[in-house]
Amino acid sequence: MEFKVNSKVLEKLLSKIIPAVPTRTPMPILENFLFDIKDGAMTVCATDLEIALRSSINVAADENITMVIPARLLFDIIRSLPETQIHFETQSNQKIRLTTDNGVYTISYSSHEDFPAIPVVSEEKEFVINGADLKKCIDKTSFAMSKEDMRPAMTGTLFEFTEDGLRFVTTDGHRLVKYINKTIKSKNEEQYIVPERAIFVLAKQLGEVDVKMYLSKTNISFHIGDLEFISRLIGEKYPSYNSVIPMENENMMKVKTGDLLSAIKRMMLFSSSNSKQVKFSINKNSLEVSAEDIDHGSNAKENISCEYSGEPMDIGFNTAYVNDVLSHLDDEEIIFKLHSPTKACIIESTIEKENEDLMMLLMPVRLNN
Amino acid sequence: MEFKVNSKVLEKLLSKIIPAVPTRTPMPILENFLFDIKDGAMTVCATDLEIALRSSINVAADENITMVIPARLLFDIIRSLPETQIHFETQSNQKIRLTTDNGVYTISYSSHEDFPAIPVVSEEKEFVINGADLKKCIDKTSFAMSKEDMRPAMTGTLFEFTEDGLRFVTTDGHRLVKYINKTIKSKNEEQYIVPERAIFVLAKQLGEVDVKMYLSKTNISFHIGDLEFISRLIGEKYPSYNSVIPMENENMMKVKTGDLLSAIKRMMLFSSSNSKQVKFSINKNSLEVSAEDIDHGSNAKENISCEYSGEPMDIGFNTAYVNDVLSHLDDEEIIFKLHSPTKACIIESTIEKENEDLMMLLMPVRLNN
Repeated sequence: MEFKVNSKVLEKLLSKIIPAVPTRTPMPILENFLFDIKDGAMTVCATDLEIALRSSINVAADENITMVIPARLLFDIIRSLPETQIHFETQSNQKIRLTTDNGVYTISYSSHEDFPAIPVVSEEKEFVINGADLKKCIDKTSFAMSKEDMRPAMTGTLFEFTEDGLRFVTTDGHRLVKYINKTIKSKNEEQYIVPERAIFVLAKQLGEVDVKMYLSKTNISFHIGDLEFISRLIGEKYPSYNSVIPMENENMMKVKTGDLLSAIKRMMLFSSSNSKQVKFSINKNSLEVSAEDIDHGSNAKENISCEYSGEPMDIGFNTAYVNDVLSHLDDEEIIFKLHSPTKACIIESTIEKENEDLMMLLMPVRLNN
Repeated sequence: MEFKVNSKVLEKLLSKIIPAVPTRTPMPILENFLFDIKDGAMTVCATDLEIALRSSINVAADENITMVIPARLLFDIIRSLPETQIHFETQSNQKIRLTTDNGVYTISYSSHEDFPAIPVVSEEKEFVINGADLKKCIDKTSFAMSKEDMRPAMTGTLFEFTEDGLRFVTTDGHRLVKYINKTIKSKNEEQYIVPERAIFVLAKQLGEVDVKMYLSKTNISFHIGDLEFISRLIGEKYPSYNSVIPMENENMMKVKTGDLLSAIKRMMLFSSSNSKQVKFSINKNSLEVSAEDIDHGSNAKENISCEYSGEPMDIGFNTAYVNDVLSHLDDEEIIFKLHSPTKACIIESTIEKENEDLMMLLMPVRLNN
């Protein structure tokens, strides 16, 4: 079998697929690309058993062949070459020879029989979403996925299709993010949970181009231009998150996002490594944030102007979680909706938007004085 | 004691000193800045016992005081502040209070008695060198310092003052670099060995501004604008490197640096992880470089055009060392001066320069066929 390919064309193809190759795996076969050369097309795919990436280019090969080639080595060779024509040729002894004007490179390939099958997702259930919009859904929510394996559903992102829009929900029990894209409406209410690694690999592949989403009971597939991205779904029930979102938080505090975020970054230097606590002392026109590191005998407090509608209140939060939430809110001003120092607090933009809705929820921590 | 200082002025000062603060140390006192406030000047210094950095600004303080302040915490607070006036004030309980328009920050300080003395280098023996020139001396040579502690002298960079110029020499026994700056001439031949960490910290401080070097038996000091950088010297004899530089390498191979470097980067993917060997097969007009990874059954060879004056020769090198050497040669063309496959090879520019001279030496490895 032999064919010719431009080095930069092949580099572009392989660079799309390599993110699915696991860096460490107990199954060495997964460290390979699966090359399927058939009837004028070359399809390359890779998988770590959770996610898979697949794409094709046209090549004029003289035979069909399916083979498995060391992914990292091939990718590193191809991208270290200047733009040149590469002549691929299989040899009798399970070797591939790559020839360019100046060089000859020989690498081993293996049989494809042990390579796991890539799931096929039926194209029956299709949703189309703009790539940049999907990236925004992920960027706003992915930080709050749980890092703990105790409740597998919470380690992923919930995709919830509803009549009002497509909801993205993440929570680790300490904070919760709900983002609604109102352009994607569905007659049937359906929930799918996409694992964390899939979310992060997917986010890197997204651009301006429209994305087609296909869904089955066990898998989700995204078609991004000529690239297909497939992920298994987490087969668990997502916690009924609506029950933890308080409805009657009547005390409103309006504050400038930048002012508070800048102060919180300084409080992170003082909130002691164990409790990571920051105290909000809220009054009509001023918010005092304070933190203390008892071990090192240091403490800090800052005053920020705010507009607050309730009775003066002291409430504690985990400094790192406040920092995460504020870092993901773009609006100049935000509202904290509060009820009491022991009840969940809602943080939202002051501006209503036409096609999206973003809500953050923070659980308070008990003040230690 | 109290004084006022602009946050950005203080940030600039501390950012110059913090590189001397060790990240891990068995002596916690070294994780601090030494603040010495005296007669209208505030001098800040830090040391890891090998290197020290010191600089001053003017402050209008009402008393003199010397104290020791947690370096990382203070630096992080100051650089997280917007531009603002900071009011420093010591309190009775070993605390410093920093007050800005919006915030109050309290941190602990300690007594300076346990802080090690910073060596004073007499200004008797002075050399002046342009900062960019000194940076070039370091950039060309530092990569070849030995990583092994067996021979302490080789873990540093030799500064050799001679009548012809200031020589910088580094070697790890496998390769050697000699760079001469001909503008710095000295009547007395003298050798000083500067430790690796000092070399890397120094390189980051250098800009266009002239640098004054002062030398004692045990220390070297660099005055860079208002910053003083002091390092201890390695108190050993440097190996007599001149005896390993061959004089009669009569076989010359001229080759384009970029062509060879690009090929070597690909050979690194194939040279097996144990031997890291690349074979040079040199003929009159062509150089073939080749490498083989027996474990993975892969191999590569490339042809590069060259001009060679001797009999055909096969010679082996460590691929990573060839890559290091070529990466530090700026000239379009270079010359390999060879004698035989078991003798050291010299690599130099094809162009003689007025004020500098750069020579690289590579030991060959025995070819395993």
